[in-house]
Amino acid sequence: MFEKPLGMRDTLPGLYVIKESVRKKMMNVIESWGYQFLETPTLEFYETVGVQSAIQEQQLFKLLDRQGHTLVLRPDMTAPIARIAASKLMKESLPLRLAYSANVFRAQQHEGGRPAEFEQIGIELIGDGTISADAEAIALMIYALKNTGLKDFKISIGHIGFINALFGEILGKEERAEKLRRYLYEKNFVGYREHVKRLSLSTIDKERLLRVIDLKGGIEKADEASSLVACDSGKKALEDLKQLLIQLRAYEVDQYIKLELNIVSHMSYYTSVIFELYANGVGLPIGNGGRYDHLLEKFERPAPATGFGIRLDNLLEALGDLKLNKDLYCIIFSRENRQEAFRYANKLRKEGKQVVMQDISGIDQIDRFTGQFTDIYYFLGKPGKVRE
Amino acid sequence: MFEKPLGMRDTLPGLYVIKESVRKKMMNVIESWGYQFLETPTLEFYETVGVQSAIQEQQLFKLLDRQGHTLVLRPDMTAPIARIAASKLMKESLPLRLAYSANVFRAQQHEGGRPAEFEQIGIELIGDGTISADAEAIALMIYALKNTGLKDFKISIGHIGFINALFGEILGKEERAEKLRRYLYEKNFVGYREHVKRLSLSTIDKERLLRVIDLKGGIEKADEASSLVACDSGKKALEDLKQLLIQLRAYEVDQYIKLELNIVSHMSYYTSVIFELYANGVGLPIGNGGRYDHLLEKFERPAPATGFGIRLDNLLEALGDLKLNKDLYCIIFSRENRQEAFRYANKLRKEGKQVVMQDISGIDQIDRFTGQFTDIYYFLGKPGKVRE
Repeated sequence: MFEKPLGMRDTLPGLYVIKESVRKKMMNVIESWGYQFLETPTLEFYETVGVQSAIQEQQLFKLLDRQGHTLVLRPDMTAPIARIAASKLMKESLPLRLAYSANVFRAQQHEGGRPAEFEQIGIELIGDGTISADAEAIALMIYALKNTGLKDFKISIGHIGFINALFGEILGKEERAEKLRRYLYEKNFVGYREHVKRLSLSTIDKERLLRVIDLKGGIEKADEASSLVACDSGKKALEDLKQLLIQLRAYEVDQYIKLELNIVSHMSYYTSVIFELYANGVGLPIGNGGRYDHLLEKFERPAPATGFGIRLDNLLEALGDLKLNKDLYCIIFSRENRQEAFRYANKLRKEGKQVVMQDISGIDQIDRFTGQFTDIYYFLGKPGKVRE
Repeated sequence: MFEKPLGMRDTLPGLYVIKESVRKKMMNVIESWGYQFLETPTLEFYETVGVQSAIQEQQLFKLLDRQGHTLVLRPDMTAPIARIAASKLMKESLPLRLAYSANVFRAQQHEGGRPAEFEQIGIELIGDGTISADAEAIALMIYALKNTGLKDFKISIGHIGFINALFGEILGKEERAEKLRRYLYEKNFVGYREHVKRLSLSTIDKERLLRVIDLKGGIEKADEASSLVACDSGKKALEDLKQLLIQLRAYEVDQYIKLELNIVSHMSYYTSVIFELYANGVGLPIGNGGRYDHLLEKFERPAPATGFGIRLDNLLEALGDLKLNKDLYCIIFSRENRQEAFRYANKLRKEGKQVVMQDISGIDQIDRFTGQFTDIYYFLGKPGKVRE
């Protein structure tokens, strides 16, 4: 009857407190690592932030303002934060460590599909082009997740530069590579294999392309991959990944890490190291991130950058059934007893309890109403005895 | 250059922590009174929530979805919460105590004017038609505000029923009253006075209308107003107000309360008690609320209801210059010292400190970069001496 638009969700009280608690646990870690939270508007200009967001056109919610400009509901937070770093925070020295907890919007095609509005919590580390910055982003993501109680998860790390080099050497033109890139993005390895087999390439080149599927594992996979590419940029990408894995050991997070050299992204702004977060039992990635060294120059403050975003809805799914029901108490009073009731309520509230005060004349069905509370205190008429 | 749409604002880190702290202080009180927070989607259908919101048409941000429905960015939270109370929470027994902290959207005509997106924190108490419920809403608003540190503020309380009765008795038709209502809404008492003088009414009736301007003060103003209306509904409204003021004494909030019988609202859904919150030094109301007994029936769950909403931006203005700069520490390390640096950072973080870890090779201008921190710890090369 009173429906919501496609993909829109309500967050009812039970889920609200869980979301708040998990969000806060991540924010505490992110803050303790010296990241500064900020907020950006829900609406941005299509021409700047909308275009740079690299979310597919058909996923954008667009509207016209009264001045005739096309606006978008922000589809991600990376582009808006790049805008701020290049304007309001222009005078802040680099590296900048910024963070956010915000809803983003992606129009959906079908009901029952994915949510069209969901919360992301993430960071952007702007102005540091070293592998150290990549390592920091990944380590921080892991520590933030560990603080929520998530146990069984893995970060898959890849490198755009390796795939670009390999496809460039073998396929040349960008459009031939595009199809293969899409199979990898969809993790459709059967489709990828079939497609490679049908390409008019030498057996050796087909084999090079097919071996990409199995490049998942420890640091040794970087060496294995190195034999597949000839050019400097491809070899450099793999050297960077090895350096990254060595650095991550210092953060004591080895157990959460694996190389997965066939990762590609739908976000066109990633330029080198990229990563995805998966947890047992949840099909969709819970978070992702990577390096985007050319986005800031679109906003006329050229700077390398890296960051990650975690999807709170998918994380909650991975955390499973959380119950955070706080006890709820109720004081039911009659008019004459209002002041005494209020004083007693305040006493309980100061002890940290959640206490509803309810005038008895405002209740229709007292048995049903009182059913929801842990304890009820009656302040009615003259003091009575508690029934045995 | 990289502008934002009209009326859209960024919240930079300094303001973010202040907003978060003030928001949390209000939420803690609201939770301790047994209210349950929830979240609703940013986009709602125009035909249901948009229409019922009673925000002026030209202030709505509208867009079309892919199915051809008109959507709005929620202009308030009362209508969405009414939708939930009548659907997802249909089976919960009344009274329902719900709360929110959410951004709402109102399109603006001019730059430099009011924000087009701003945060409201508020409650809805649904299903209790007694004056006790009005008293609870007002008392809770006061306690939530007191907890933020706000001192110099007043709640002005009026009653739609009184103005409706008075205007009805004297002016009859709704359209003649509309003009006067608008002057009162704009608090343009000069315009109101001039307009009353030009009406073709008896001297006595003009005098009755003019006395409305001065009906501000204590409980005695309700008696004074009672002599101006003849009908039962008008007298009942004033009796209710007296009862409300008596009840508020039990909450020990008298000092924050005054009657202001010429308050009207732009929100067409208010039906009886209404109130506005003003603080010294801020021209616009910081919050407002009132009783809306006919909104829920629009969503087919008829129930009386009351509530309030506080505008966080205006509240921050009233609170004045808050500074919440937490100390920020930095550890600058070279590669060999990464692990030692990380362990020291974690030690500081566990003490509650915010600590940036920065690889020295990622810094361009070290003097500028280090300027922002309270203390710097260097983990470089072999241990050195601190300069005297």
